[in-house]
Amino acid sequence: MMMEKVKIVIAGARGRMGTEAVNLVNETEQFELVGVVDHKHDGKLLSEIEGFHNDVRIYSDIKKCFFETNPDVLIDLTTPEVGKVHTKIALENGVRPVVGTTGFSDSDLKELEKLTEEKGIGAIIAPNFAIGAILMMKFSQMAAKYFQDVEIIELHHDQKLDAPSGTGIKTAEMIASVREEKKQGHPNEKEILAGARGADYEGIRLHSVRLPGLIAHQEVLFGGNGQSLTIRHDSYNRVSFMSGVKLAVETVMKANVLVYGLENIIE
Amino acid sequence: MMMEKVKIVIAGARGRMGTEAVNLVNETEQFELVGVVDHKHDGKLLSEIEGFHNDVRIYSDIKKCFFETNPDVLIDLTTPEVGKVHTKIALENGVRPVVGTTGFSDSDLKELEKLTEEKGIGAIIAPNFAIGAILMMKFSQMAAKYFQDVEIIELHHDQKLDAPSGTGIKTAEMIASVREEKKQGHPNEKEILAGARGADYEGIRLHSVRLPGLIAHQEVLFGGNGQSLTIRHDSYNRVSFMSGVKLAVETVMKANVLVYGLENIIE
Amino acid sequence: MMMEKVKIVIAGARGRMGTEAVNLVNETEQFELVGVVDHKHDGKLLSEIEGFHNDVRIYSDIKKCFFETNPDVLIDLTTPEVGKVHTKIALENGVRPVVGTTGFSDSDLKELEKLTEEKGIGAIIAPNFAIGAILMMKFSQMAAKYFQDVEIIELHHDQKLDAPSGTGIKTAEMIASVREEKKQGHPNEKEILAGARGADYEGIRLHSVRLPGLIAHQEVLFGGNGQSLTIRHDSYNRVSFMSGVKLAVETVMKANVLVYGLENIIE
Amino acid sequence: MMMEKVKIVIAGARGRMGTEAVNLVNETEQFELVGVVDHKHDGKLLSEIEGFHNDVRIYSDIKKCFFETNPDVLIDLTTPEVGKVHTKIALENGVRPVVGTTGFSDSDLKELEKLTEEKGIGAIIAPNFAIGAILMMKFSQMAAKYFQDVEIIELHHDQKLDAPSGTGIKTAEMIASVREEKKQGHPNEKEILAGARGADYEGIRLHSVRLPGLIAHQEVLFGGNGQSLTIRHDSYNRVSFMSGVKLAVETVMKANVLVYGLENIIE
Repeated sequence: MMMEKVKIVIAGARGRMGTEAVNLVNETEQFELVGVVDHKHDGKLLSEIEGFHNDVRIYSDIKKCFFETNPDVLIDLTTPEVGKVHTKIALENGVRPVVGTTGFSDSDLKELEKLTEEKGIGAIIAPNFAIGAILMMKFSQMAAKYFQDVEIIELHHDQKLDAPSGTGIKTAEMIASVREEKKQGHPNEKEILAGARGADYEGIRLHSVRLPGLIAHQEVLFGGNGQSLTIRHDSYNRVSFMSGVKLAVETVMKANVLVYGLENIIE
Repeated sequence: MMMEKVKIVIAGARGRMGTEAVNLVNETEQFELVGVVDHKHDGKLLSEIEGFHNDVRIYSDIKKCFFETNPDVLIDLTTPEVGKVHTKIALENGVRPVVGTTGFSDSDLKELEKLTEEKGIGAIIAPNFAIGAILMMKFSQMAAKYFQDVEIIELHHDQKLDAPSGTGIKTAEMIASVREEKKQGHPNEKEILAGARGADYEGIRLHSVRLPGLIAHQEVLFGGNGQSLTIRHDSYNRVSFMSGVKLAVETVMKANVLVYGLENIIE
Repeated sequence: MMMEKVKIVIAGARGRMGTEAVNLVNETEQFELVGVVDHKHDGKLLSEIEGFHNDVRIYSDIKKCFFETNPDVLIDLTTPEVGKVHTKIALENGVRPVVGTTGFSDSDLKELEKLTEEKGIGAIIAPNFAIGAILMMKFSQMAAKYFQDVEIIELHHDQKLDAPSGTGIKTAEMIASVREEKKQGHPNEKEILAGARGADYEGIRLHSVRLPGLIAHQEVLFGGNGQSLTIRHDSYNRVSFMSGVKLAVETVMKANVLVYGLENIIE
Repeated sequence: MMMEKVKIVIAGARGRMGTEAVNLVNETEQFELVGVVDHKHDGKLLSEIEGFHNDVRIYSDIKKCFFETNPDVLIDLTTPEVGKVHTKIALENGVRPVVGTTGFSDSDLKELEKLTEEKGIGAIIAPNFAIGAILMMKFSQMAAKYFQDVEIIELHHDQKLDAPSGTGIKTAEMIASVREEKKQGHPNEKEILAGARGADYEGIRLHSVRLPGLIAHQEVLFGGNGQSLTIRHDSYNRVSFMSGVKLAVETVMKANVLVYGLENIIE
């Protein structure tokens, strides 16, 4: 028996994530790229753009693209605004969206949820596609049931502006959601130098290290009763997101509901 | 409403683990020590033994102990041979066993399983009570579904005779059970110095570090696609086992089957 | 040729460090305990105190002790106030002091320096005897010449009151002394949660983790140009100080000056 | 006062290391690229080669290059055979060589040493330019004087063929050179799975981890008396070598001897 390939359209193919997604589809036997959506280069072949080799058409009009290429899945790696519009159109046209952008409000999600129900097809929206990071967060949430005390250290290159990182805060949120708020450390502890004990998120301490040379790393440390448990993720480059995109495409083909966050498809 | 305390008998109280178990019961409000089983000191009070303060009786005869103290739970921290006998007697007398010894054969376990069914009460046998180590193994097994490549580094003090450690091998077994066998590393890799690539368990590499000063540590490293995921457990002293014993006692009170391995009560 | 043993008097033998020092002397072939100085138990034998087996006399009067036992070295593990007095008396009586207390002022040190010159004998004052920690600080100072950017993470049990730890601050001081002040991180970085970027010591960031189960650990992370260098010390128990005391005793026997800080006898 | 720039010729500029070296020279204010030696493209400008912007001439004949450009320093990143020839010609022509290739025999080194003496100029040959790695090895050698027990874990991507890595073996050699041979671990230890205890180099254990996603990492672990000391280097990309090249150029300008190994110019 020959398995049919999953026919895929990519929006945002010229971006850094998008370029990797094109590589992923090319390298995955059961995937097939059938078209590309881009506000530029309408009517050209993707292979006319430097760095690409696929002879598939570029469309500015996403509906026309869907109509002519009849894809199973849309991988959208554009911007929050564009991603929202694309996701809705995809569902309305029976195309299963795998979306890597953020910025969906609760009402956006409700609307999309309703659409997936009506159409009976799945959709996956994932702010983070790095499976290793997702597992780190999921395991941290599980461990928090057995270890009351936890601190998060996230380490990034020194060009990063925000501290803590989005993943650091998301990890703290996921942990906080399964434990009662607890002020950790000694009740009488004092900072000789201000900031030494890090940031406080519902009693969980977060520490942000910024050094040249580093890329994107995070450690979640649990301590208790003569032992500690550490969960660490190191992201060395953008390729790390692609295993998550692959998993999402495979999963969305079998799903018939909206999934928000890759942590919900990890077992 | 006042909650009734869990009445507990401990076998093996004079051992190192047993001593910690007595401390655990004393420090836990909802637990109450009602008797101690020991082949020595029959008829004495535990408080007559140096290092203990509980005025509970020591029994050489476990049945007599159960008859007179009417416990809910037996915590058995003796030897494999004695533990087996105690576990059976406990179940026959309606006492829920929490057993920390190894050495149960498959037929032993089947017999005990049948007994729990007949009596409608739970039993927990756990070769390892360190919750952090259990979580490390469980998370490793989960991660192995998403990361094909994994190596295990376990680090212990240099008085340890066996390499790899029991926990190291158990971790490899749990990982191997959920993935297809895979020979990792480069197909043409060669050891310039024999042993450099460590031990091989169904394609998983294990490395044993032995250094004075160390206690008991293990790292499980997963690698793939521009990222790595590391799960590490550090055990600093014996107290680390007690949170697992506590969880087991709480769980066995609600269980009505035999549970083998603490990993099966972790959610 | 038989080497003569180093004759040692210990002050503070009943304290936790002192007890380990007695063990160290007993276990070291070339060391010999000849007396103990203690404000209590004058005239008793040390073996009359629980936990000790040495049949050496306890003296309240340190001069009498020196006169009767004629030691080569005084190991002082008392309090800052007492330690200062003992150190001076030792030098005046030709006994080489190895002192583990802090609290010496610059003028104290100058006075002691003059005394060692006059007497032509060595003295070692060391606030920290853990050789691993000393090496970590020394290496960090050396690395700072080649890596401009560094952050310090120190991790301790949650009963510790002060943050950062003394060793953390001392490490920052040693690094700062060999580099120009540099504000690290991105000039426009911003803390979404206050404290995330840790404490600031002349541009070096310090992060203090406090978790139950941990003991005393520190990591110094250097980053630059596609690489990072990490130096980590883990202290698991008090015994870790004893190799430093041993090194100090051996060194003080050959020294004829005052040494402040064990880092100055590490090569 | 204006400081004169160091005039530099690069051999091997089109290679991966060479390309980074051109970037380094361009980005360093006190360095100036004056020519390039290449067996191809003789007479062209470097800027005619894709990826380069320097309007300096390419020479196939190194002597002609030296004659016309009159450089202070030759950075040679070619092959062992070519590097040897270039180094000799450079010294004969009064140009200070900084060489990144391996394969110099003892007699080669003696000959070059003699040449540096005759000419009164420095030369630096460095098989490894990653300063972080050099520091790791140097610190490990220093620590080995105080910690008898050490194990090395090196971790690389799974395309690496040899185990242990060159840096791993070099580290073991440097440690072995300063300590008496010691068989570590328990005298009666036994491997349940062959290879668990790793490779043996004069009693030092080496462990090689190979996982996709990893780049080039090494940990040196020392253990003793209730403590451990860990020195770790992470190399994330080729840029990591350039700080070492820069240091070598600066140092060779002040040197008047042959230096083999960057560890000898680290203080």
